[in-house]
Amino acid sequence: MLSTMQDGHLSISTLLRHGSKVHATSTITTWTGSGTRRETFAQLGAHAAKLANALRSLGVTGDQRVGTFMWNNAEHMAAYCAIPAMGAVLHTLNIRLFPEQLTFVANHAEDQVIIVDGTLVPLLAPHLAEMKTVRHVIVANGDAMALEAPAGIEVHSYDELLAGQPDTFDWPEVDERSAAAMCYTSGTTGDPKGVAYSHRSIWLHSMQVCMTDSMRLAESDKALAIVPMFHAMSWGLPYAALMIGASLVMPDRFLQPGPIAEILAAEKPTFAAAVPTIWQGLLQHLDANPQDISHLREVVVGGSAAPPSMMHAFEERYGVPILHAWGMTETSPLGSVARPPADATGERRWQYRYTQGRFPASVSARLIGDSGKELPWDSESVGELEVQGPWIAASYYGGSDIDPEKFHEGWLRTGDVGKISSDGFLTLTDRAKDVIKSGGEWISSVDLENTVMSHPAVAEAAVIGVPDEKWDERPLVAVVVRHGQQITASELREYLSDKVAKWQLPEHWTFIDEVPKTSVGKFDKKRLRALNLEGKLDITHF
Amino acid sequence: MLSTMQDGHLSISTLLRHGSKVHATSTITTWTGSGTRRETFAQLGAHAAKLANALRSLGVTGDQRVGTFMWNNAEHMAAYCAIPAMGAVLHTLNIRLFPEQLTFVANHAEDQVIIVDGTLVPLLAPHLAEMKTVRHVIVANGDAMALEAPAGIEVHSYDELLAGQPDTFDWPEVDERSAAAMCYTSGTTGDPKGVAYSHRSIWLHSMQVCMTDSMRLAESDKALAIVPMFHAMSWGLPYAALMIGASLVMPDRFLQPGPIAEILAAEKPTFAAAVPTIWQGLLQHLDANPQDISHLREVVVGGSAAPPSMMHAFEERYGVPILHAWGMTETSPLGSVARPPADATGERRWQYRYTQGRFPASVSARLIGDSGKELPWDSESVGELEVQGPWIAASYYGGSDIDPEKFHEGWLRTGDVGKISSDGFLTLTDRAKDVIKSGGEWISSVDLENTVMSHPAVAEAAVIGVPDEKWDERPLVAVVVRHGQQITASELREYLSDKVAKWQLPEHWTFIDEVPKTSVGKFDKKRLRALNLEGKLDITHF
Repeated sequence: MLSTMQDGHLSISTLLRHGSKVHATSTITTWTGSGTRRETFAQLGAHAAKLANALRSLGVTGDQRVGTFMWNNAEHMAAYCAIPAMGAVLHTLNIRLFPEQLTFVANHAEDQVIIVDGTLVPLLAPHLAEMKTVRHVIVANGDAMALEAPAGIEVHSYDELLAGQPDTFDWPEVDERSAAAMCYTSGTTGDPKGVAYSHRSIWLHSMQVCMTDSMRLAESDKALAIVPMFHAMSWGLPYAALMIGASLVMPDRFLQPGPIAEILAAEKPTFAAAVPTIWQGLLQHLDANPQDISHLREVVVGGSAAPPSMMHAFEERYGVPILHAWGMTETSPLGSVARPPADATGERRWQYRYTQGRFPASVSARLIGDSGKELPWDSESVGELEVQGPWIAASYYGGSDIDPEKFHEGWLRTGDVGKISSDGFLTLTDRAKDVIKSGGEWISSVDLENTVMSHPAVAEAAVIGVPDEKWDERPLVAVVVRHGQQITASELREYLSDKVAKWQLPEHWTFIDEVPKTSVGKFDKKRLRALNLEGKLDITHF
Repeated sequence: MLSTMQDGHLSISTLLRHGSKVHATSTITTWTGSGTRRETFAQLGAHAAKLANALRSLGVTGDQRVGTFMWNNAEHMAAYCAIPAMGAVLHTLNIRLFPEQLTFVANHAEDQVIIVDGTLVPLLAPHLAEMKTVRHVIVANGDAMALEAPAGIEVHSYDELLAGQPDTFDWPEVDERSAAAMCYTSGTTGDPKGVAYSHRSIWLHSMQVCMTDSMRLAESDKALAIVPMFHAMSWGLPYAALMIGASLVMPDRFLQPGPIAEILAAEKPTFAAAVPTIWQGLLQHLDANPQDISHLREVVVGGSAAPPSMMHAFEERYGVPILHAWGMTETSPLGSVARPPADATGERRWQYRYTQGRFPASVSARLIGDSGKELPWDSESVGELEVQGPWIAASYYGGSDIDPEKFHEGWLRTGDVGKISSDGFLTLTDRAKDVIKSGGEWISSVDLENTVMSHPAVAEAAVIGVPDEKWDERPLVAVVVRHGQQITASELREYLSDKVAKWQLPEHWTFIDEVPKTSVGKFDKKRLRALNLEGKLDITHF
């Protein structure tokens, strides 16, 4: 029996209409380096309409892809609104991709137009010749004349192109399951893989961001979106802000601790979102240059695990609670949020807050063990996390033959390994591909790394599994010694001896100058493994 | 271009699985008159599975309808979960319907089974013989033996039927657009009309209830659901509580001010929901029997307009803010919620809070004037409210020929008349059918009634339009004088003269013993108009 309820409605055009009308006076503030420029949501509505008209005038039609190569600013926000609302697909290009990845994703998505920030032109320009479908480049916040494009690509000034365009647009109806926006993941293996979010998934995800037990975004908020708009949709903040009327503060390219502190002082946001390295940098800056940041009701940290020491420092020294969250590009990205149960107090409350968080109703989770069997939620059983839900990817863009291993039985295999408590809190211990399978037990490379890095003489440490006849795999620790310090493998092994289980104690150690990194700054263990296979590491064995 | 996102997931079975696992320790507490009985969400999961198995054993299959004729209690909550999760459709029968309406809705929905609370058996039993599709009646919380059912209907004891049933159930996959639950509206014209909520609409509505700028329901809440589960799904609280892990307190049949005060003292809920008459009654009780109720972070009031004096009394005397909201059975029911913008303070804040509230992104609204043209949101233009959204009815159950006037161009005509501010706050002034159209202007019958009722000698006043040759319509005021008081039409007209615009001043007055009421206690203006047409009112004309 069919319901009698209305269908449709879940679309970026509805969101834009709502935000620009009901929350007309909410604002998007963009930092200029020395001050701000401000646009109301009513102006954003007109701005987005002008951009949509401009893109139509360049021939953008149907569900063609329009790329952005931009910082977080008002123009990027207009692109977030205009492109999906006109029925096209927003493709946020990650400015930190390696050149070959960048051309790959632009070609794979078949971008027709790219909007680029003036300051990012030098990063993009050298690769335009290899972007086979791009016909137009629009330079925002900078000088279009400075870009010499290859033949076949027209260059436009954003301001000139939009000037004179009508400030209304007849936004078409779209199917809620059609793609609204795309983002490619930059894994360490193979080509980047595209995730295409739907109008529906973005709508549901935005509601989640505004739920009290999630990020709690409200009309009363002024949200500083530090996490880039080219990185998992800035964790959903732009669309959620439009939904609820929260004002947005955009740092543009000023992501260093000093400018962030300046933005905090000038705009006094109530909420902010960024990866741990940003908060670590800000913490050091604040410790050296004290400043009241208690206007922040909460800041959300994800992307990688937030160190407990940092969580305590922000809360105890600055009165700002850190909300730990987990997600990935394939999960839109909101997967879990570490808001403790109401009855957890004191140390128990902190233990909940250190976790990657609790699963909301829209994200079903299960743990799969080595044998492929589902594991219990007992805070002990360790397996690979699989998730399911309306804002979780079912496949990668381009067909089900792209990395089919990531999806099975309707679940996304996250590649993350961890355990879940009986009340649905996730604790991650490793990436599935990095976990070390030793004698039927799993050793977390991340736990070992953190323990080694807790030694004051160690700057960085990366752990990989190496083949072992008896145990299948055993850990190899690659250590970067802190500048001016000295330490031996024996001393580190001794240091670890009372900190990890005896059977986890690594036998293989090497000292390197630097841990190889991926384009987004994560440890590149693939390269480390390659160096080992090529015999380029000088290893001490115990 | 299709997105790569997963589909499905939005279903009551997902909700039940989530709530009973992730929020296993949250509770449903049912008031027994002298104390409580408590069930955890984990127990609710098992309870619902037993009920689903029991219903299957009675032959309930596919999308058959199962009726409930129950108070708010743990058994009704199990029915809310089990019936939609097993793929059947929950039909909440309003115990306050007139007998002919009750048999009409049971027959129209083709209910196969009815679950009835023992104390409500006397209300249901006399009508069972006319309910043509009912095959089984299950008596909960009472003596099944006391019910003598007509031939063809089997009577079961709820407890005996569930005893021994398995406490797990293989919940089937359902299409999210299929019906999960039904509710009939009891209008004053024609037969009741059915609204069939979908799994999808309930899911989205539950998310809205948990949004910070909506009802703000959270895991930390203990919500007292006074609004009946047979009345617009108890405003979505049961499903939203399951989604977020909020504990529920159910008053069962104890809805009088004394017992409600007892429940508040015993359970100290943080949140509550009820119509204004309940709060008015509680207020009088509390004023006579003072009690600390500041454990309530907020209470939501809807169903009809909350008098400002009551809102002030609760906030200023008891420290409990009243959140005013508007909705109807056809809107699931959350339409708008009066949470003021963050920058509104003092008197301006109160002015926002008196309104029916602001439209969320999932509810689009427009005002249609007399000429059928859309009116601006300028806080002045008065028209009929039309709404659109994923939890708004597109038609009534039974086909598009049932009251087609209520729906046009994809919008629901609410039958409510009012104005909207530029920032999306709704102020209702009347029901469309009650508004008085005088010389091209609209006179609000509700405003006139409230003004007349502000006179201390007036107990009740109802205003209807009567035909007028010159002005089309003019108001007729029917007054019920307060016991022991005396007042004349001239005196009331004089009293009004400096309170309403001159052209609104009523010329026609009548005194009656009582305003006729509908089954849900609203003024029955249809009957008042009939009395007038039949010449049964003694009217003073000026």
